[in-house]
Amino acid sequence: MTALEELPLRAELRGKAPYGAPQLDVPVRLNTNENPYPPSAALVADLAASVSAAASSLNRYPDREALALRGDLAAYLSRSGGVQLSAEQVWAANGSNEVLQQILQAFGGPGRTALGFEPTYSMHSLIAEGTSTSYVVARREVESGFRIDPAAAVEAVAEHAPDVVFLCSPNNPTGTALDPDVVEEVYAATAGMVVVDEAYAEFSHAPSLLRLLPGRPRLIVTRTMSKAFAFAGGRLGYLAADPAVVDALRLVRLPYHLSVVSQEAARAALRHADDTLASVDLVKAQRDRIVTELRARGYDVVDSDANFVLFGRFAEQARVWRALLERGVLVREVGLSGWLRVTAGTEDETSAFLDALDAARDEAGETQ
Amino acid sequence: MTALEELPLRAELRGKAPYGAPQLDVPVRLNTNENPYPPSAALVADLAASVSAAASSLNRYPDREALALRGDLAAYLSRSGGVQLSAEQVWAANGSNEVLQQILQAFGGPGRTALGFEPTYSMHSLIAEGTSTSYVVARREVESGFRIDPAAAVEAVAEHAPDVVFLCSPNNPTGTALDPDVVEEVYAATAGMVVVDEAYAEFSHAPSLLRLLPGRPRLIVTRTMSKAFAFAGGRLGYLAADPAVVDALRLVRLPYHLSVVSQEAARAALRHADDTLASVDLVKAQRDRIVTELRARGYDVVDSDANFVLFGRFAEQARVWRALLERGVLVREVGLSGWLRVTAGTEDETSAFLDALDAARDEAGETQ
Repeated sequence: MTALEELPLRAELRGKAPYGAPQLDVPVRLNTNENPYPPSAALVADLAASVSAAASSLNRYPDREALALRGDLAAYLSRSGGVQLSAEQVWAANGSNEVLQQILQAFGGPGRTALGFEPTYSMHSLIAEGTSTSYVVARREVESGFRIDPAAAVEAVAEHAPDVVFLCSPNNPTGTALDPDVVEEVYAATAGMVVVDEAYAEFSHAPSLLRLLPGRPRLIVTRTMSKAFAFAGGRLGYLAADPAVVDALRLVRLPYHLSVVSQEAARAALRHADDTLASVDLVKAQRDRIVTELRARGYDVVDSDANFVLFGRFAEQARVWRALLERGVLVREVGLSGWLRVTAGTEDETSAFLDALDAARDEAGETQ
Repeated sequence: MTALEELPLRAELRGKAPYGAPQLDVPVRLNTNENPYPPSAALVADLAASVSAAASSLNRYPDREALALRGDLAAYLSRSGGVQLSAEQVWAANGSNEVLQQILQAFGGPGRTALGFEPTYSMHSLIAEGTSTSYVVARREVESGFRIDPAAAVEAVAEHAPDVVFLCSPNNPTGTALDPDVVEEVYAATAGMVVVDEAYAEFSHAPSLLRLLPGRPRLIVTRTMSKAFAFAGGRLGYLAADPAVVDALRLVRLPYHLSVVSQEAARAALRHADDTLASVDLVKAQRDRIVTELRARGYDVVDSDANFVLFGRFAEQARVWRALLERGVLVREVGLSGWLRVTAGTEDETSAFLDALDAARDEAGETQ
């Protein structure tokens, strides 16, 4: 057995553990913000037929530019996002993580700096590390509901002069929607790229920030089909931006990065978008129910525009996490002392979560 | 319209063009070393059924470790590669390009150096650039049939002290198999990682170099399903190495990088491996035919262990490339002055290529 330490691994990776939530087989999985509603039978049939048709030419490389898929994504965003977009303004990859990595390969990298407002999606800093981009942090404060103040954001930009600014709306893990003024003022204050991560946009009370794209060639809005689209297993992330941004990413993307199967599966999912997205209202109702119920029980609960809720505050959140797990409910420790994050699932899953939380509190005498 | 130059792109990317062979719709495509034989009807049916079954839980993230697929790949390598391997010794990603990128993220990167023996697969240097790894070159010489001499290779390692050495067997674009002594001596001479790219191994006259893995924890053998496996559209690359190497790559891989659909499609393709790989003998026969026929016509032809042939030498290879394209035959300019590369396809495709080449020579008075 060779130990990892015996290999000539990069110094900054030594002693690290791989990213990822525990993948545990429990009855109620509320830890990775998946849509609890599986694809419809019609979608599955359409997807299987599409993949089957494409499979007969799998010996050939896929369309390297994925133009048909990008056109379909542009049409979806144009229908839902309040702005008209075409295929040249859209780019897709294997999950939004790969989109973010490509952004940092093109606009970040060694000698460059990315700025994030923490707590936020932890992959932003990890992908910065993976691309040797310096990562600097401005704080979101619990006292202000984890909101970003436009003036404070501009100040952080002035202080760090970042090449890439990550904003996130709704923000993971807090659920906080972004004030559009933050994007406008940060954009005006920086010469770098501004990335608005809208992975959870479909769940928000607020409209998408896609409408801010026109006239802002350094603005990028990233999206994913993993959440509202119930397509986490399909791994399809995308972005909307100026066509010049897409041209930049084509310089760093690995050729043929998106398989024929991924392209066809995603196109099938997009054909059933209206049907799939009908579940969003159900999920939002459960999200609002969780907020209400947890507040009624006296927990601290952050306002959420996403399909999850951050709640606390616990003296030892790890103990509560384990107590829930013992009752068959998996939630997420997000590295935020005193807090846990729970995904809004089905009505039954919400009930199971609330029951488990009540039982755990009764048993442990657990309080805030 | 925003120009790319107006964006804050990394300096080293300015003025570059995206990688990739032209994707032209012509009758005879012999430019990207695909297997000309499409998947069997049985494989397509099995794949569609597998994807259909998996699609009903696409709302959930895939197995992040892709263990079932890695087990299947290990079983295939154990059957064919002359060495017993288990899932922990195998890693998979979206094409061997992503595998290579992960290797350089873990073992290359800023301040580190990779060594390649050129001409070789151009993605090695491009992925080095994409990961900010310095890339240094030792030459393969036409006079020695583009072979690597073990002593010269050791000398190159001594001169450059690389952190990663790329070897390629059979080598693209020359088709040259590697003397196993090169691997053994380079491995002994370096403290870095040694990567043997065996993308075309199934077409070789020589056995796989997988047998060199035991006792060499810094050795990595990369493979792809894009070539012999007729699965270019499926985008599945993989590697075999010490389990510690796999642990290292898990630190840099994007979480959930391989979709459920990719994992299931590849597993279906592996179940039909014997059937698919029966086409390898047909392709090898055409490869040998191309070598013989081109030599009979007086061309310079490099010995090939792959599914392609490098031939020349032309005063202006671009003119010959265009003359072939005008006759419906697409071959590859590989950036090597005087040479062209042609993929071994079906018998009819080989005939079409030879006819087009003869016609082009007759018309243009084209000679060596």
